[in-house]
Amino acid sequence: MSGEISMCEPEFGNGKAREPSVGGRWRVSWYERFVQPCLVELLGSALFIFIGCLSVIENGTDTGLLQPALAHGLALGLVIATLGNISGGHFNPAVSLAATLIGGLNLVMLLPYWVSQLLGGMLGAALAKAVSPEEKFWNASGAAFVTVQEHGQVARALGAEIILTTLLALAVCMGAINEKTKGPLAPFSIGFAVIVDILAGGTVSGGCMNPARAFGPAVVANHWDFHWIYWLGPLLAGLLVGLLIRCFIGDGKTRLILKSR
Amino acid sequence: MSGEISMCEPEFGNGKAREPSVGGRWRVSWYERFVQPCLVELLGSALFIFIGCLSVIENGTDTGLLQPALAHGLALGLVIATLGNISGGHFNPAVSLAATLIGGLNLVMLLPYWVSQLLGGMLGAALAKAVSPEEKFWNASGAAFVTVQEHGQVARALGAEIILTTLLALAVCMGAINEKTKGPLAPFSIGFAVIVDILAGGTVSGGCMNPARAFGPAVVANHWDFHWIYWLGPLLAGLLVGLLIRCFIGDGKTRLILKSR
Amino acid sequence: MSGEISMCEPEFGNGKAREPSVGGRWRVSWYERFVQPCLVELLGSALFIFIGCLSVIENGTDTGLLQPALAHGLALGLVIATLGNISGGHFNPAVSLAATLIGGLNLVMLLPYWVSQLLGGMLGAALAKAVSPEEKFWNASGAAFVTVQEHGQVARALGAEIILTTLLALAVCMGAINEKTKGPLAPFSIGFAVIVDILAGGTVSGGCMNPARAFGPAVVANHWDFHWIYWLGPLLAGLLVGLLIRCFIGDGKTRLILKSR
Amino acid sequence: MSGEISMCEPEFGNGKAREPSVGGRWRVSWYERFVQPCLVELLGSALFIFIGCLSVIENGTDTGLLQPALAHGLALGLVIATLGNISGGHFNPAVSLAATLIGGLNLVMLLPYWVSQLLGGMLGAALAKAVSPEEKFWNASGAAFVTVQEHGQVARALGAEIILTTLLALAVCMGAINEKTKGPLAPFSIGFAVIVDILAGGTVSGGCMNPARAFGPAVVANHWDFHWIYWLGPLLAGLLVGLLIRCFIGDGKTRLILKSR
Repeated sequence: MSGEISMCEPEFGNGKAREPSVGGRWRVSWYERFVQPCLVELLGSALFIFIGCLSVIENGTDTGLLQPALAHGLALGLVIATLGNISGGHFNPAVSLAATLIGGLNLVMLLPYWVSQLLGGMLGAALAKAVSPEEKFWNASGAAFVTVQEHGQVARALGAEIILTTLLALAVCMGAINEKTKGPLAPFSIGFAVIVDILAGGTVSGGCMNPARAFGPAVVANHWDFHWIYWLGPLLAGLLVGLLIRCFIGDGKTRLILKSR
Repeated sequence: MSGEISMCEPEFGNGKAREPSVGGRWRVSWYERFVQPCLVELLGSALFIFIGCLSVIENGTDTGLLQPALAHGLALGLVIATLGNISGGHFNPAVSLAATLIGGLNLVMLLPYWVSQLLGGMLGAALAKAVSPEEKFWNASGAAFVTVQEHGQVARALGAEIILTTLLALAVCMGAINEKTKGPLAPFSIGFAVIVDILAGGTVSGGCMNPARAFGPAVVANHWDFHWIYWLGPLLAGLLVGLLIRCFIGDGKTRLILKSR
Repeated sequence: MSGEISMCEPEFGNGKAREPSVGGRWRVSWYERFVQPCLVELLGSALFIFIGCLSVIENGTDTGLLQPALAHGLALGLVIATLGNISGGHFNPAVSLAATLIGGLNLVMLLPYWVSQLLGGMLGAALAKAVSPEEKFWNASGAAFVTVQEHGQVARALGAEIILTTLLALAVCMGAINEKTKGPLAPFSIGFAVIVDILAGGTVSGGCMNPARAFGPAVVANHWDFHWIYWLGPLLAGLLVGLLIRCFIGDGKTRLILKSR
Repeated sequence: MSGEISMCEPEFGNGKAREPSVGGRWRVSWYERFVQPCLVELLGSALFIFIGCLSVIENGTDTGLLQPALAHGLALGLVIATLGNISGGHFNPAVSLAATLIGGLNLVMLLPYWVSQLLGGMLGAALAKAVSPEEKFWNASGAAFVTVQEHGQVARALGAEIILTTLLALAVCMGAINEKTKGPLAPFSIGFAVIVDILAGGTVSGGCMNPARAFGPAVVANHWDFHWIYWLGPLLAGLLVGLLIRCFIGDGKTRLILKSR
């Protein structure tokens, strides 16, 4: 590796398309290192959150959890498989936090990624509003999270968001970044994490696991009740997963303690 | 590469079966370069659209969107995994347009591909009619798209078709053609794009994303109301995805602007 | 290749476990070449058909087609991924016929495979009977095919079985045997073929596509009405797919006509 | 292989992260060989069983078997894809038994694995209790197995657990350990085994296949009726699969009889 490494660790590929520079080294342009990953995070977040919100708006809550679970999970899985080689395929501020903590994303890119993801979330939610009949849109509160209605639910919802996001962030960090465990099925594993998280936790907290997914529709529908749960829970889980990997389950290169010799 | 490259970029393989010619170069016969891809596009489109139409005709509209979504998406995914190495696995005129724009299909093959896909669509829809009881067939209008019933729905349906097809065409072009991002999971990613598109947009526009899927049953059931939506929306999205990749998110080889040096 | 090639073409692997013989060649024992593939076809067919029959018996017909479709399709997919490297992973006489026609199975093994698959089907259906309450078993006719009740349905059911099995046999022969198109996702593609075939054709013909799946429960429940449909349809489709690949869509090595030079 | 091999056979990777030791050999630290696999079995079992139990508690029994089947199966599949390279990805005492019998797990690790899996099961079930409303938790008996209510069901339930676990243990042992048949799709194959087992056997025995999945909620809800079925059935199946592979279907390296020469 030289000083010209990519700012984000491309997870699902081998950088086949890098362009050669003088001296025989492979050189990636400034555009591809800094701008394209952010563009792709914005685009992927917008498409994923458009699908997620629209599936909730159009189907109401009477068809059970299978439909929103599959829509969110398969959409995230396919967007990671499709665009992950450029940006790492986070589309989620909590995942970017965990990736940064374990060395899978350069710290200078964390804020740009977060901004891109939140903008993508707003764009996706706005597009979902644009194609929905108004009545359906407002009946579903624009797909903002409305599961938590009273203070008695808060602790359980926060706890659920932490555990559910832990599974998701582990699927990304161990399945796609940590050298010893990463593998070719990771994009779909991550999608499956979203499916099972919604099937299990959908009635406890809504199964958000992603501040950008919460933020977009909250802006578009101006619905902010208990919104902080969907920032605090996922980000705490991102922190937790980062520490867990750095201390205990990461490979020899990633782990900071318990190393051999 | 020599002058004897294949007319379509085989996406999911390495052309293991090419036959050697004099001089040590690999040579693909005229039949394999021009005729077989069209045959395969016709066959795959017919089977995929047969499954899609029959799943709609036989199940009516009362079992929710899961059944048609899974039938269409998994059928497309498996047909691409099975036949994609021969033709690129488009089975969709809008996808062929996007693939042509980014250099994944030779321009001279675009029209033959379109004709093959539309013939396949008609064949698939006709076979679905042949095995269905007449009453069920007509109740479902032969699986033609009937979601849009009045002019007030047109703008939303057209918008939805554009966004939904954008996700599908991105899954093909970035997941299976663009060097930097293509990967082994692409056939199923593309199938998942169809699943989530139908789950999210099925009640807005019907979730067609494919002029051949619209055209086949429209001919067989002679149902042409608002048919143009399913040509204009997907083809616009194909154009949009082609431009997006050529300008912004393609790799160094594909992008026309913002190149290094 | 030498005279000591395996009798069945192992589809999903590279024969890593072959034992070396004198002279530096790799030698596979008589047991591994002739007996183990038949054992595995029997075991896999029994498990796959046990799952299929039990899912029909226990759930009746009132939960829609999703449950039997997923049970049959995912069970077949996983059994192929798990055991396919030993026997080719057919578990279906019609598929073995098509594989034989295109050179993916040695002709001397066709009859032993058929016997193994039919015995597996009977074993699976008998085990499903053993663990089911008698009332449920007889209500479902032991998961034998009862969709066709009168002569007016026969032509449509036979036609559907032919087309549905064509998709399945193509997924096996093109996805796992034909050199140019075979790929790592084939086991799940084949499973998806079963899922979409049942979702689309379940109410037309029952979506059998497999004489062994039909025969096992027919024996155990002694239900033989219109049983011949599930032999004639799938075997005709196996023949059709074999010819289609040999004549038109196979690679240069497999195709008998239209070859270069 | 040297004396410094890993205690568990990492199934889905190539040990890329092993650290070099003096003499050019690759050396894995004591921590990575003995402690980390147990930690990972505990963590994975806890997350998988948390998802499984919560999906049952929150959804009751009125939404059919699709929801619990997909939640359990996809959760297991993703946890294996994510963590399997460290511990082999068992998360199930019956699977660890079968793996030990065929040489995929060192005998000295069997007891530590079992303890880790049972602790993980208790932790997962306790977390599921913590985030659930008390009423829902007790209505579902904390997701403990309550399918068997009377002695007349015992034989059928025990038989079903044996056959269902056989399919699961085969998917692990043949798909991920046996050299000749192991392949990249194994994590999802194993998940699919759980899905189809629950779809088929959910109403016969509950579809447990895993003493740790049974034990965790049994402790937390203090529900022990017919609990022994979920130990005896799966462990017998583990034994059966071990013998089957060692005697008949394993590759040349694994099989103890019927070897060539």
